[in-house]
Amino acid sequence: MQRKIGVIGAGAVGTTTVGALLGSGQLDAEIVIVNRNHGKAVGLAEDMQHAAALSSTARVSAGGYDLLDGADLVIVTAGVNEKNGGATDRIDPRGRRVLIPDNAKAYSKIIPAVAAAAPTATILVVTDPPDPLADLARVLAPGQPVLSTGTVIDSLRFRAQIARALGVQARDVSAYVIGEHGTSNVYLWSTATVGGARVLDLLARRGDDVEEQKTRIRKAVTYGNISIIEGIGASQHGIGAVVARITEAILRDERAVLPVASYLPEYGTTIALPSIVGARGVIDTILPTLTDEERDGLADSAQILRDAGQFALASA
Amino acid sequence: MQRKIGVIGAGAVGTTTVGALLGSGQLDAEIVIVNRNHGKAVGLAEDMQHAAALSSTARVSAGGYDLLDGADLVIVTAGVNEKNGGATDRIDPRGRRVLIPDNAKAYSKIIPAVAAAAPTATILVVTDPPDPLADLARVLAPGQPVLSTGTVIDSLRFRAQIARALGVQARDVSAYVIGEHGTSNVYLWSTATVGGARVLDLLARRGDDVEEQKTRIRKAVTYGNISIIEGIGASQHGIGAVVARITEAILRDERAVLPVASYLPEYGTTIALPSIVGARGVIDTILPTLTDEERDGLADSAQILRDAGQFALASA
Amino acid sequence: MQRKIGVIGAGAVGTTTVGALLGSGQLDAEIVIVNRNHGKAVGLAEDMQHAAALSSTARVSAGGYDLLDGADLVIVTAGVNEKNGGATDRIDPRGRRVLIPDNAKAYSKIIPAVAAAAPTATILVVTDPPDPLADLARVLAPGQPVLSTGTVIDSLRFRAQIARALGVQARDVSAYVIGEHGTSNVYLWSTATVGGARVLDLLARRGDDVEEQKTRIRKAVTYGNISIIEGIGASQHGIGAVVARITEAILRDERAVLPVASYLPEYGTTIALPSIVGARGVIDTILPTLTDEERDGLADSAQILRDAGQFALASA
Amino acid sequence: MQRKIGVIGAGAVGTTTVGALLGSGQLDAEIVIVNRNHGKAVGLAEDMQHAAALSSTARVSAGGYDLLDGADLVIVTAGVNEKNGGATDRIDPRGRRVLIPDNAKAYSKIIPAVAAAAPTATILVVTDPPDPLADLARVLAPGQPVLSTGTVIDSLRFRAQIARALGVQARDVSAYVIGEHGTSNVYLWSTATVGGARVLDLLARRGDDVEEQKTRIRKAVTYGNISIIEGIGASQHGIGAVVARITEAILRDERAVLPVASYLPEYGTTIALPSIVGARGVIDTILPTLTDEERDGLADSAQILRDAGQFALASA
Repeated sequence: MQRKIGVIGAGAVGTTTVGALLGSGQLDAEIVIVNRNHGKAVGLAEDMQHAAALSSTARVSAGGYDLLDGADLVIVTAGVNEKNGGATDRIDPRGRRVLIPDNAKAYSKIIPAVAAAAPTATILVVTDPPDPLADLARVLAPGQPVLSTGTVIDSLRFRAQIARALGVQARDVSAYVIGEHGTSNVYLWSTATVGGARVLDLLARRGDDVEEQKTRIRKAVTYGNISIIEGIGASQHGIGAVVARITEAILRDERAVLPVASYLPEYGTTIALPSIVGARGVIDTILPTLTDEERDGLADSAQILRDAGQFALASA
Repeated sequence: MQRKIGVIGAGAVGTTTVGALLGSGQLDAEIVIVNRNHGKAVGLAEDMQHAAALSSTARVSAGGYDLLDGADLVIVTAGVNEKNGGATDRIDPRGRRVLIPDNAKAYSKIIPAVAAAAPTATILVVTDPPDPLADLARVLAPGQPVLSTGTVIDSLRFRAQIARALGVQARDVSAYVIGEHGTSNVYLWSTATVGGARVLDLLARRGDDVEEQKTRIRKAVTYGNISIIEGIGASQHGIGAVVARITEAILRDERAVLPVASYLPEYGTTIALPSIVGARGVIDTILPTLTDEERDGLADSAQILRDAGQFALASA
Repeated sequence: MQRKIGVIGAGAVGTTTVGALLGSGQLDAEIVIVNRNHGKAVGLAEDMQHAAALSSTARVSAGGYDLLDGADLVIVTAGVNEKNGGATDRIDPRGRRVLIPDNAKAYSKIIPAVAAAAPTATILVVTDPPDPLADLARVLAPGQPVLSTGTVIDSLRFRAQIARALGVQARDVSAYVIGEHGTSNVYLWSTATVGGARVLDLLARRGDDVEEQKTRIRKAVTYGNISIIEGIGASQHGIGAVVARITEAILRDERAVLPVASYLPEYGTTIALPSIVGARGVIDTILPTLTDEERDGLADSAQILRDAGQFALASA
Repeated sequence: MQRKIGVIGAGAVGTTTVGALLGSGQLDAEIVIVNRNHGKAVGLAEDMQHAAALSSTARVSAGGYDLLDGADLVIVTAGVNEKNGGATDRIDPRGRRVLIPDNAKAYSKIIPAVAAAAPTATILVVTDPPDPLADLARVLAPGQPVLSTGTVIDSLRFRAQIARALGVQARDVSAYVIGEHGTSNVYLWSTATVGGARVLDLLARRGDDVEEQKTRIRKAVTYGNISIIEGIGASQHGIGAVVARITEAILRDERAVLPVASYLPEYGTTIALPSIVGARGVIDTILPTLTDEERDGLADSAQILRDAGQFALASA
């Protein structure tokens, strides 16, 4: 009766994901960690199991793909990341898209193995860049629900910066970033609100130069990530919390609204829009109320993701 | 080092409030219950203490006003309610304002006793009608931060109805009701959003008659309350959860955005607007982005509350 | 995929049970409230749904027995209680066993209806006296797992009193009360420990008269209940938290150790022992390490429960 | 009004500690991370702040020792660990005591800086070996409450192994490991219970060779750690959860019973016994009910810790 979650990859993101899943003490599931280096998966599972014993009823184990049998959800974190993936130039305009060749190859082995072992599982792609890799995964696991973490973390960073500027807690900021989880992402300023007031109105009322604030906040959202990479090598804990939140929405069939990415025929690619998330991944997507500028930005982001998805498919 | 919370009144709302405070198992505070009938407070405290022992570190006791010494927060729930207050006509256009004379009299004894025992406590008014009684309380406890539950519950009901109509969870609806917690409250449709889309756009896209939906939802918010009163005599559990949430925001100094009511000089009365809530109650209020119709509604509601506040003062 | 829980009865215990189930904000289930007076169930459900919208993903509804279709767990709280059941003499040596005739009659209608609508559900009996009524329920719903709340609440009260005497938090006291949830219950002093020290040793080390302390604590456990009944009419909130905890153990298939009661062939009746609780109710029971005195007490309690169970069966 | 917690060290244990503190979404505190490499602390804080924004009201920042001003609790995780500390021989009978010279030197700089900045803070030592380093810290910060994580993690592992053997959840096993957090630790089998039954009785009833089981479990507790070190380099997540739990007990002034280590005059050193933990660290310790063998083991462990404490002092 207990749910089963597979986590593929015991690297930094896999580790923080399992930690975040267990962290709340409320997860009602069995977690299976699968890693190329089996000893690493065993060590992580054993360590996490001790942590879990303190407060939670979750069980953690390590094993091969066969252990994914019956899984409700498989979270894929395996692959190279921006630190160890040879991304030597931090301002490479392609951003994390440089990771596509290596990670598409890894996915061409991982996803068919997941699909064989857990043919009804929902697949959540976390590896960077998540949107093209999810686009690849849906080809490799036809018929299974596939989604990626999309712009959930971008949206959280956006809210955190708005919250800081306005002196409120981030939880009460309603604001979304959509499109690519990457440099072409689109900040939805026009519908961002706090307490029923448009954020742009609140900034203007204070006498701020609104365009300056928009630029500053957008930079801070991006700069946040760079200062994390410079400081600790890779952003991990934000993404762990994000994966835990998406997992919760799936396991509880919540119909939560989260800007995850899924394949949208009207855009011809896997792209993030606010989505209604339940047991089988994305149930429906919500097209936000957009200004012309926001609409154009979304079209550009979709084009970039279509190309990236093709590139991932060709690299697999 | 542990915080202290006083709860005045061990009736239905006081009981559900203490239950909700303890319910999460996370409250880090001592609760003191004060009730005219001391035995009732003792029984409730003893019963709740057993519940608390299961999961929480909160302590619950019962006593006189002197036990409020050092309290950080005093929650006032005492008074007659719509069921036992003689409100014979459910469609009385004055709504819960008919309770003013009785409850203003009760407050004229309770609030000075609270102010004497806990002169630095924040006072949270829950008794109906909360806004005029909070207006009275600030006169009776000069210098102490006073707020009422305002339209937090109206806003939750509004979100629940929108969520039901759109098939999403209520937590992800951003929508506020402001003004009076009563028949003149103002529904902020123009800035209500889900996933960055205006709710009015989402309803229109579905081909709904938007005005019809607005009327239907407004009625359902109101009708909800009536079906509760008819079924179980008084709405209790929603308000208990609301009080627990406001308490959490105060104890953690969260800067949470909640539509509680506080005295606003520009309106000359105690009225609900989205407010930034922290350790000392309302830190600041946010004037939402309003349409002309919403602005007029707020002005009307303010006038009604000014009159009701005067009536409460005269009745005390 | 979401679990379904039925709650039979919208009285004081049913209400506090639903409140406690929702209280943590973590319940991952749909709750259906069934009550003879349908309007009361609707009102309670509507009120609770507003509370739930604040923090939880649980859904609450009201309906007839048919809505129990597919339920994983049905919690039965319906029946008369010590206050409204005509128990005029608080020191009636039969305690809550005087409620058997009325509640056995109620169960003879309720349980077959539950069994017809939800033939695979686990049935949790809360109505007083829970052990004989659970004994009756297993006859009325053959083949379904049946358990009662047993001595979980007695054990919590026992721990709370020990904790108070020793100045520690109750959560870290390991101590059990077994046998009848009633006047013949058995306090397991010999294996009660705190921090690896026997509680009896800790009391003796302080120079306390150990027998005096044992008597005092046993009285305080009992007196607790009386002061609750005198103060607020019926103990509710402790039992609500207990039901929520047992429910959690069942829904999560936790293998938690809880002194619930189930039918034990070796005693020929439904009686509380520390039990391993999972998805299908009681998986196994643990016979504690007993002194001769404790063993005799358990035998006496079993005899009383055998008689009470027969009486319940005859009354149905 | 919000509490302040300092975390010294942004390495593996520091990182997992901050993650665990934030993980529950319930921490009501400001966290300040201090690290020799300031950029690393900033990156970690920024990453964690994004995680926190999702669900919690905690604030995370990075800075120098001066930011510890007003801290309620300072958690010290800095130093070399078993992986990077040159412990080339995993079966070195001194275990993690080989880390003393390096970490004592680090502490001789860290603790006076902590004491100068936060002279009233409680100091929680996590760096290995925690007991001798806590013994050193109390000399370097005279007058401040000092405790170490002691045998909390050993006790959790012990409970997890017993739970696995008996098919129950670990949370319901009452069992303690005391003495050194290291190879001389003492397993309190005689008072270990599950459901009021002695664990030794439960193993015997199953027909197990009890001595064999004791040896097997003791090895599994130790082997657990080795498999973690072999797999992922260092045990981290168990200890993160342990630190989060101790922190919670301190911030809430819980009077929780936890086998942390503190200086005990009767043993002449810092050693772990079940302790009552509240706002100012260890309020009191509980001497468990011991067999002669357990008593002798504790005396041996105390001697080893006295020597290790002297060695730490001499190395500083």
